[in-house]
Amino acid sequence: MAQTKKLDFRVAFAMNWEINTQNTHITSSHNQTWAGIRIEAQVSENETIQFDKFVGVTSSLNHQPDQLIKKAEEKALMARTAGFEKMLAAHTDRWSNIWLHSDIKIEGDIAAQQAIRFNIFQLNQTYTGDDERLNVGPKGFTGEKYGGTTYWDTEAYCIPFFLATAPPHVTRNLLIYRYKHLEKAIENAQKLGFTKGAALYPMVTINGEECHNEWEITFEEIHRNGAIAFAIFNYIRHTGDEKYLEEYGLEVLIAISRFWAQRATWSTEKQKYVILGVTGPNEYENNINNNWYTNKMAQWCLRYTSESLEKIKTSNPTRFSAILDKTNFDFEAEVAQWQEISAQMHFPFHAELNVFMQQDGFMDKEQKMAADLPAQERPINQNWSWDRILRSCFIKQADTLQGIYVFEEEYDTATIRRNFEFYEPRTVHESSLSPCVHAILAARIGNLNKAYEMYLRTSRLDLDDYNNEVHEGLHITSMAGTWMSIVEGFGGKRVTNGALRINPIIPNQWEAYAFRITFKGSDLEIKVSQKEVQIISHAKKTATLFVYDEKISVEPGAATSVQLKSEYNA
Amino acid sequence: MAQTKKLDFRVAFAMNWEINTQNTHITSSHNQTWAGIRIEAQVSENETIQFDKFVGVTSSLNHQPDQLIKKAEEKALMARTAGFEKMLAAHTDRWSNIWLHSDIKIEGDIAAQQAIRFNIFQLNQTYTGDDERLNVGPKGFTGEKYGGTTYWDTEAYCIPFFLATAPPHVTRNLLIYRYKHLEKAIENAQKLGFTKGAALYPMVTINGEECHNEWEITFEEIHRNGAIAFAIFNYIRHTGDEKYLEEYGLEVLIAISRFWAQRATWSTEKQKYVILGVTGPNEYENNINNNWYTNKMAQWCLRYTSESLEKIKTSNPTRFSAILDKTNFDFEAEVAQWQEISAQMHFPFHAELNVFMQQDGFMDKEQKMAADLPAQERPINQNWSWDRILRSCFIKQADTLQGIYVFEEEYDTATIRRNFEFYEPRTVHESSLSPCVHAILAARIGNLNKAYEMYLRTSRLDLDDYNNEVHEGLHITSMAGTWMSIVEGFGGKRVTNGALRINPIIPNQWEAYAFRITFKGSDLEIKVSQKEVQIISHAKKTATLFVYDEKISVEPGAATSVQLKSEYNA
Repeated sequence: MAQTKKLDFRVAFAMNWEINTQNTHITSSHNQTWAGIRIEAQVSENETIQFDKFVGVTSSLNHQPDQLIKKAEEKALMARTAGFEKMLAAHTDRWSNIWLHSDIKIEGDIAAQQAIRFNIFQLNQTYTGDDERLNVGPKGFTGEKYGGTTYWDTEAYCIPFFLATAPPHVTRNLLIYRYKHLEKAIENAQKLGFTKGAALYPMVTINGEECHNEWEITFEEIHRNGAIAFAIFNYIRHTGDEKYLEEYGLEVLIAISRFWAQRATWSTEKQKYVILGVTGPNEYENNINNNWYTNKMAQWCLRYTSESLEKIKTSNPTRFSAILDKTNFDFEAEVAQWQEISAQMHFPFHAELNVFMQQDGFMDKEQKMAADLPAQERPINQNWSWDRILRSCFIKQADTLQGIYVFEEEYDTATIRRNFEFYEPRTVHESSLSPCVHAILAARIGNLNKAYEMYLRTSRLDLDDYNNEVHEGLHITSMAGTWMSIVEGFGGKRVTNGALRINPIIPNQWEAYAFRITFKGSDLEIKVSQKEVQIISHAKKTATLFVYDEKISVEPGAATSVQLKSEYNA
Repeated sequence: MAQTKKLDFRVAFAMNWEINTQNTHITSSHNQTWAGIRIEAQVSENETIQFDKFVGVTSSLNHQPDQLIKKAEEKALMARTAGFEKMLAAHTDRWSNIWLHSDIKIEGDIAAQQAIRFNIFQLNQTYTGDDERLNVGPKGFTGEKYGGTTYWDTEAYCIPFFLATAPPHVTRNLLIYRYKHLEKAIENAQKLGFTKGAALYPMVTINGEECHNEWEITFEEIHRNGAIAFAIFNYIRHTGDEKYLEEYGLEVLIAISRFWAQRATWSTEKQKYVILGVTGPNEYENNINNNWYTNKMAQWCLRYTSESLEKIKTSNPTRFSAILDKTNFDFEAEVAQWQEISAQMHFPFHAELNVFMQQDGFMDKEQKMAADLPAQERPINQNWSWDRILRSCFIKQADTLQGIYVFEEEYDTATIRRNFEFYEPRTVHESSLSPCVHAILAARIGNLNKAYEMYLRTSRLDLDDYNNEVHEGLHITSMAGTWMSIVEGFGGKRVTNGALRINPIIPNQWEAYAFRITFKGSDLEIKVSQKEVQIISHAKKTATLFVYDEKISVEPGAATSVQLKSEYNA
């Protein structure tokens, strides 16, 4: 009988990223994917062997099926020609560049540091932004749950991350993904009875068609249409790429606004426009009327599309006219209708409590607090019947607060605090997308302890497997939310009126933290300690931003410091 | 090549009903089913051959699987011993008796006459009432749709028919069917989180377990619990079988009332008990709050159960005490809670329109009339998306009006008319159970044309295949509704305060009609012409009833006439 030897293996992996880093055009790395794998094995005490394997990866997305093997062989050959060392260097170089722009450094809290780097790595591992046919699934490539399909997570969570940490084309490709699905979204709305080019983007998709199968989601969770529209606005305000609106964005905005205009109906009872029969972000409610968040997104969308049309009418009359022709748009009549609907939109409000109501009739529910739930009944979605869940007041994830997060600049601190203090205690955070929004708003109202609690909850979700579900895959899209908790939460990063603003605070548990933001050609490193905020500009032009509402300019390569205002928002 | 002869066949069928007609006990005819089949075939111009086939039918419901063939052979042998002629005579005799008690004769309208007899035949063909393990499926044995399962159709529609046209044990067995499923109904409620013996009967069942799979039906269409409770009350008021309450009924009522007591929750906002997240009889609405019909049934049930407990506490203290023990019932506390909930139940009401509201927020919907729907869009459930259907105000079947039908004596004619005139024009009658209730209420408010229109719609549904769906099977349970349209609609039959009442009217299209009613040992034949109402008593005791609110006594075998009041209810 032969003796079994214990061997040591080392495996290194190198992708063909050098091709893309040399390209100025946006191309699909997936057209030309190969990899080199180095295996080192200790075969005896004194002897180590090393060999390299080269792999070509092809897909029928890019090649005719009968060409797949041939193309893969070509790629593997190209890899072998380049050699492992060269590929590894390019691979390392690419990752260094990614870390340079997206890393967050935390001093004095090693668990928090590990967590945020784990999240940032996974996000960049999932999406490179080079192929506009691809998108980000909630589990990325780490699990089969959600089948690799795309949700509103991309627009609401991932895009803020990529906008600040990656070149503009990365986000742009995510927008183009939806632009290319516009026709399917119009077909989807037609199937439901909508007309005249109204579009309803699918809740879940891989090729533009709706891939979900529950009515309370497919035709009721329509707020995703709002997120897709808002992402266009968000991209433009971050990058300054105004051309995107006339090239692609406006067609999408028109189609989505047409949907809202048909979806909102006039209530003679309320003398307001209402949006009936929806499911908001809080999926522990179904088929509700006048979800505050959905109505807010619809109102904003109708207004933004109207303004965008007016803008392009002036700035590019030729293109304006072409879009009107293409979309068969009745400018006077449709815009007038949109303005009427957005002006007369109903928003549930509780006068006595002075808070926005998540939906009509929310206060008819038994009002209970999540803190009073017995530990053994949580998470409720693993312990309660859906009958109990739907009839309870418990909120799965930020809903009204999601709207306040998106439109925060419209509300003063007292209003944000009242709504936060009403909704947060009723929220069970059973979506991974929930804690980050609460962390940001808690930071906004100066509740540093709550912000930190929520940050921990979002950042180590998978590392510590809080919900005992990591075997299903990582929460890739919510990892972008973790990044947001630091940069938008503690860092207080906002973009308002075309300007970048930061209002940093710092948890007591941290000595310092630092992040980097790309904004309209600026490239700023922000370091926050318990004493001061330092801003270093890495771009070639003078950077302008507001720190605690004071306008500051930073010359290329220079650094500026501002004293930390720990009580700024309180 | 052999010549093909054209042959005439005659097939006769005889069931073993003579056994049951001689039994005084309720036994299952299905324990001992056999049949004789006579086939006559003309084999040449001058020669006819005749032969009889005898069949034994067995089921694993009644025998061990390995006994099935043996038992079937025994039964076939018993049939052959009896012989075809004897079986045919018994069969004919049984049907004659059925027709004697359940026939409705219509003079001057052959289409209406054919329709009602077709319906009455099918109902009796489907359910004999001899086996309490069996029930009535919406398609009977005529189609595979609904898989032979039981719905609330039985309690709400079939029971009124059988109560008036069949011996009491027929209905009693339908009640026992539910009594035997009580434990499963308690389990079903437990799965949803209800406790302490609360029962939720399944929406669809074959053995007591829920066989439906959509949340908006299974745990939201809870009004069926009310229908099952009401059937107990209905059975007792018709038959006078007060003993049923203490023997079986009360246990079911307690369990259902416990469900309502837990299902209703206190709204601090409304300062009322509310029932949130339900689907009413109108399944073109889902997950609504405070469905007027459901709240009404719940309130009634809590009150009736309380009264029934008080009654048995006095009439049979021993049994009362046994039931309390068996159900672990806290008499003082639970009844006090039920009285509190029923007294403080919220009922949506529109003050300006002065009509009950089908649900909270109904008037936020765009108010459109069914008559304005383009013909090519009807039925809407074959032409519209569910998104459009759910958000429309269109009503599938009687909902608020179903409640007014059940509790009609609580409302004056003006109230009934106002609600009828509000809801009927919004109703698309896309359930076969809808037109009959409208026919009855239309007759009640003196709208004879509408009543006749609705009668025609319900009675010839399958004969004329109105909805182009008869290939799926006949609408067996709604056929009972057709019977109700005549007897309760035109005949105005009611049972109130323990007394039988009729208030006959007659459509202009008919010369006369006649029906027969069994009521607490009375057996009355009612003949209605354009001039008068004749009542003939076929029982052995003096019959008492109210005709147009006047008390009338009819001696055995005698007949009494009253002048027709064509404008009675108008």
